[in-house]
Amino acid sequence: MAEYKKRTRNDYNFFVPIVTRWSDNDQYSHVNNAIYYHFFDSCVNTYLIQKCSLVPSDSNSIGLVVSSHCQYFKPLSFPETLEVGLKVTKLGTSSATYEMGIFQSGSESPAAVGGYTHVFVDHHTRKSLPMPTSIKSGLSLLSKPIPKNKL
Amino acid sequence: MAEYKKRTRNDYNFFVPIVTRWSDNDQYSHVNNAIYYHFFDSCVNTYLIQKCSLVPSDSNSIGLVVSSHCQYFKPLSFPETLEVGLKVTKLGTSSATYEMGIFQSGSESPAAVGGYTHVFVDHHTRKSLPMPTSIKSGLSLLSKPIPKNKL
Amino acid sequence: MAEYKKRTRNDYNFFVPIVTRWSDNDQYSHVNNAIYYHFFDSCVNTYLIQKCSLVPSDSNSIGLVVSSHCQYFKPLSFPETLEVGLKVTKLGTSSATYEMGIFQSGSESPAAVGGYTHVFVDHHTRKSLPMPTSIKSGLSLLSKPIPKNKL
Amino acid sequence: MAEYKKRTRNDYNFFVPIVTRWSDNDQYSHVNNAIYYHFFDSCVNTYLIQKCSLVPSDSNSIGLVVSSHCQYFKPLSFPETLEVGLKVTKLGTSSATYEMGIFQSGSESPAAVGGYTHVFVDHHTRKSLPMPTSIKSGLSLLSKPIPKNKL
Repeated sequence: MAEYKKRTRNDYNFFVPIVTRWSDNDQYSHVNNAIYYHFFDSCVNTYLIQKCSLVPSDSNSIGLVVSSHCQYFKPLSFPETLEVGLKVTKLGTSSATYEMGIFQSGSESPAAVGGYTHVFVDHHTRKSLPMPTSIKSGLSLLSKPIPKNKL
Repeated sequence: MAEYKKRTRNDYNFFVPIVTRWSDNDQYSHVNNAIYYHFFDSCVNTYLIQKCSLVPSDSNSIGLVVSSHCQYFKPLSFPETLEVGLKVTKLGTSSATYEMGIFQSGSESPAAVGGYTHVFVDHHTRKSLPMPTSIKSGLSLLSKPIPKNKL
Repeated sequence: MAEYKKRTRNDYNFFVPIVTRWSDNDQYSHVNNAIYYHFFDSCVNTYLIQKCSLVPSDSNSIGLVVSSHCQYFKPLSFPETLEVGLKVTKLGTSSATYEMGIFQSGSESPAAVGGYTHVFVDHHTRKSLPMPTSIKSGLSLLSKPIPKNKL
Repeated sequence: MAEYKKRTRNDYNFFVPIVTRWSDNDQYSHVNNAIYYHFFDSCVNTYLIQKCSLVPSDSNSIGLVVSSHCQYFKPLSFPETLEVGLKVTKLGTSSATYEMGIFQSGSESPAAVGGYTHVFVDHHTRKSLPMPTSIKSGLSLLSKPIPKNKL
């Protein structure tokens, strides 16, 4: 886990911008720990919607989070702009595990690294099922190996 | 109030970008009504911090919201990017009233218009006091009158 | 609007409890102005789900907010528990206007009063339509007049 | 980690109630994965404030989260009420690691289990420092060992 700190932007394949908000800061005047997971959600779902044809309100198959984690390295604070980088570390028939790095504007080393695992389920029955081809092929593009010296 | 619908980007003097988030959408797959007020907060406070030298964690004088309102004209939905325009409609000794318009990327007519009134108070006693010169002069730049045909 | 300050618990017909959260407080260590609208949403939707048979993920008819407002009288802060009282001030064929008062535990006078207007629309087309009978009859129970001396 | 699923209410020493909110549910009509971390924050900070004399806006020593994680076992959905149970799994000079279980009303087995590690720092310099005596002794009350058959 300590190796997460060595990640750089090169370890990620897809980026979304984040504009921090007043409500991201908690009483301690920094971005609250739970907000990072909202950033992760925005990153993964932007990719699934824009690159894998997911329509959240309509798709038969949706991804539910079964576990999540985050390591925090540097404080962040509104107003600043960030970028979240995404890669897929494990891709199964019905599940995908993502890793994400959160970078401050202009910074090569991450302020935080974390991720989560999606299990794809039927929208109505919530039973797991193989993920659609459009999602599988979209996510496989983000599955390039992390160079050895970064692990 | 119905006249809010006629606002355009020209009615506002300062803009901040908003990148919508997965968490902005509620069960009805559109940006939830309360989230617009988080956008308002981000807009006003970005201006106060970047243009009026407010340091939220440190300033002696802080602005507390005493009333707020919003009219919603068009649905918004993650993922899309927005801009929030700001103007000051009333500027007193210790209070300021803001109006904000929320615009979809590329749209001249607002998706929503609303605003709120700040009373500036002492950070510790929470008693109202005249706003600092840096804030007063910064906000006065946003107080240009709205052209008559827009009222 | 100033009369809102005179409201008491007797002016409302249905109450939901709110347990404040760490994330409700902003940098100024009080419940943020936008959070009150999340409380309003929880109150109205609890009533619609528990008393009017609304199933948000499934109902053909859903309520969308077209305007909202709030007046803030006293600061609130995590951790404290609150109650939100609800009444219906206007009930049409396809729209309902709610007023809500937010009360601190043990307090008769509201910390904030506000509300919003729902227009009921078809879940898929988002065109307005008459609200279902179960909602109309449920909401009519909350429409008792506010005693004259409170207006 | 799989053993988290076997936790019961008996594994935790302090509980806070959670009333779910409309905004907790995301587009998939269940409590969003990031919201669980807001619940964790509310639980830990309620204990620190009510039992360990922490005053977030004023204390010299504050706890910052350096890592967090959660495993999700059962879906949750607004409106329902929950309880979050807290225990301390590691207590150092300047850091504390918490585990929390989220329980549906009336349920003995957790809907989710997770936690995070706080490093206590000086409010102004953000350098780590030994936690105050009131916090150390308060947290030590939550450090009773988890019975062996549960590990």
